[in-house]
Amino acid sequence: MTLKLGIIGYGGMGGWHRKNAARVDGVEVVAAYDIDPARVEAAKETGLKGYYTLDSFLADPEINIVLVATPNHVHKELAIAAANAGKNVIVEKPVAISIREVDEIIEAAEKNKVLFTVHQNRRWDKDYCIMRKAVESGMLGDVYNIESRVHGSGGKIYGWRAVKEYGGGMLLDWGVHLLDQILYMYPENKVVSIYAQLFSVLNPGVDDYFKILMKLDNGVSVQVEVGTFCLRSLPRWYVGGNAGTLTIENFEGKGGITRVKKLMEEVEPEMVETAAGPTRTFAPQPVEVREEIGLPEANPDWTDFYRNVLNTIEGKEELIVKPSEVRRVFSVMEAAFKSNELGRSLDVNL
Amino acid sequence: MTLKLGIIGYGGMGGWHRKNAARVDGVEVVAAYDIDPARVEAAKETGLKGYYTLDSFLADPEINIVLVATPNHVHKELAIAAANAGKNVIVEKPVAISIREVDEIIEAAEKNKVLFTVHQNRRWDKDYCIMRKAVESGMLGDVYNIESRVHGSGGKIYGWRAVKEYGGGMLLDWGVHLLDQILYMYPENKVVSIYAQLFSVLNPGVDDYFKILMKLDNGVSVQVEVGTFCLRSLPRWYVGGNAGTLTIENFEGKGGITRVKKLMEEVEPEMVETAAGPTRTFAPQPVEVREEIGLPEANPDWTDFYRNVLNTIEGKEELIVKPSEVRRVFSVMEAAFKSNELGRSLDVNL
Repeated sequence: MTLKLGIIGYGGMGGWHRKNAARVDGVEVVAAYDIDPARVEAAKETGLKGYYTLDSFLADPEINIVLVATPNHVHKELAIAAANAGKNVIVEKPVAISIREVDEIIEAAEKNKVLFTVHQNRRWDKDYCIMRKAVESGMLGDVYNIESRVHGSGGKIYGWRAVKEYGGGMLLDWGVHLLDQILYMYPENKVVSIYAQLFSVLNPGVDDYFKILMKLDNGVSVQVEVGTFCLRSLPRWYVGGNAGTLTIENFEGKGGITRVKKLMEEVEPEMVETAAGPTRTFAPQPVEVREEIGLPEANPDWTDFYRNVLNTIEGKEELIVKPSEVRRVFSVMEAAFKSNELGRSLDVNL
Repeated sequence: MTLKLGIIGYGGMGGWHRKNAARVDGVEVVAAYDIDPARVEAAKETGLKGYYTLDSFLADPEINIVLVATPNHVHKELAIAAANAGKNVIVEKPVAISIREVDEIIEAAEKNKVLFTVHQNRRWDKDYCIMRKAVESGMLGDVYNIESRVHGSGGKIYGWRAVKEYGGGMLLDWGVHLLDQILYMYPENKVVSIYAQLFSVLNPGVDDYFKILMKLDNGVSVQVEVGTFCLRSLPRWYVGGNAGTLTIENFEGKGGITRVKKLMEEVEPEMVETAAGPTRTFAPQPVEVREEIGLPEANPDWTDFYRNVLNTIEGKEELIVKPSEVRRVFSVMEAAFKSNELGRSLDVNL
């Protein structure tokens, strides 16, 4: 079969999907609907059927899957309308702006027996796939700490993303990716504790810097952090295990792993005078003990997202971004908002 | 006057004080007491009077100030004994192993009208003084985030520091310094929330990795972290303000500040394809907008600690490391232990 994709919301991400989905065999972008007639015209110029009303768009029998790429606050109503029209539905992230909305979408999709998934494309990010491979291969030993950071420096958040009522702010926009990446790694574990701090540094009304510290039931500590005005950036990933430490600097996956060939002997070294002051514990490690090893390779492809949707509909594969996972990420994100609001951690089981 | 210093516990730190205190005009190291006769012999070899019993040591009328540099679990009894013998008292950090013990020492010092302070020498660390100067000068604008990390790579904790009953572990050993540095910067503010995670990565029984996330009542987020097996290290300091970002890599104070000459205009940029994917918010900043500036200078001297003690006793200066501050640091440290134990944050007012 061929996925005949209709896009709702032909803005930045709508245009992006038009370009990228079309690269996949078996996927064809056929139509777009936008509330802004100028965007409908833009869609038509690229050869799509352009619709000025939702009803006419959903009435197009050629469209068998709808992609919702509007501002976040209208995802729910549009996703449900598409499901009720019998269309399969992909929603841009974050899927909605409350867990109740997420549940309503899932319910509508189940009732109409259509596929529902969310464009969590960062499961296919190179840096993430490398990090995950390193952790899961055991190269770092037992991992006790994972830190995931995105430090941007522009400062300004643009358009509807800067407006709370439209589902703006960095936790919804980027936090949803970073949390999804972590939770996707640990499907069998639960988040048991979460503590979040959100800030509006330069963008009043929405969070433009946040820090989340969590604990999983396997004891792993997870820190997730996004800032839009971090003019010096810490590595994208910092992961510690009892056999080594990994850093990945950036989205390209530049970085490495340091391990030790043997642990320091049980011999009490002399106290040394370092720039850190007098210390035994932080005495420098003999260079010959250290071992620098390269990162594992990973070359994921974002368009596998669409391929998986196609294969799922054809019954050949299991859906990768499952509604239950989308719901889980959203629950953790809501707990983070609540933690920030209350100014304390939450005991959870998510 | 001359401070005539007697050292209790002539091990690593005792020997360090013997060397460094002696560099200060008006301070003379005259005697040492240790429970290990070999250490008393070692002290005698450097020209000190050596005592094999506490009573004989405290009975020496020449000693007018005692420095307690033993394992942490016996600080309290020794500090109180010294105060009761009419000696001024300096205690190595951490001052004790519970807040009750801290209060008992303070009480004994007050009752005997002797000076009591703690060797929080890291108030004079170069990296700290530079960071503090940058924050207080306003170079970073309003600071919203301070991260203080010490990432060592040796893995192994040595001697009594690896034994819980002796007051071992990194939170007591290094956490006390890093927390003291932060609290010393914010004497008028309160810690209102604290969330701590402690780990025993390679040293069973004591914490060899910890992460503390706090919020101050002025809204500043503070993260304090120490690890003994971090084979790749993040910067010693990472500080974010609404006008710039500071990093200091190491104890030598290498690092810099990045600011922007002007904030990005209120013009919506095109969505760009970065390695991070399609994004407006994280579109790269024009290079010409960025401004790299050097760190402020600071050349503190650890021996100023002894000078201040001398000047305080002579009535010429105010004591820098005040008992009330020592108590405050300890309260925060205890809250961190409790937070870790409960697996949740604590609402505090410290």
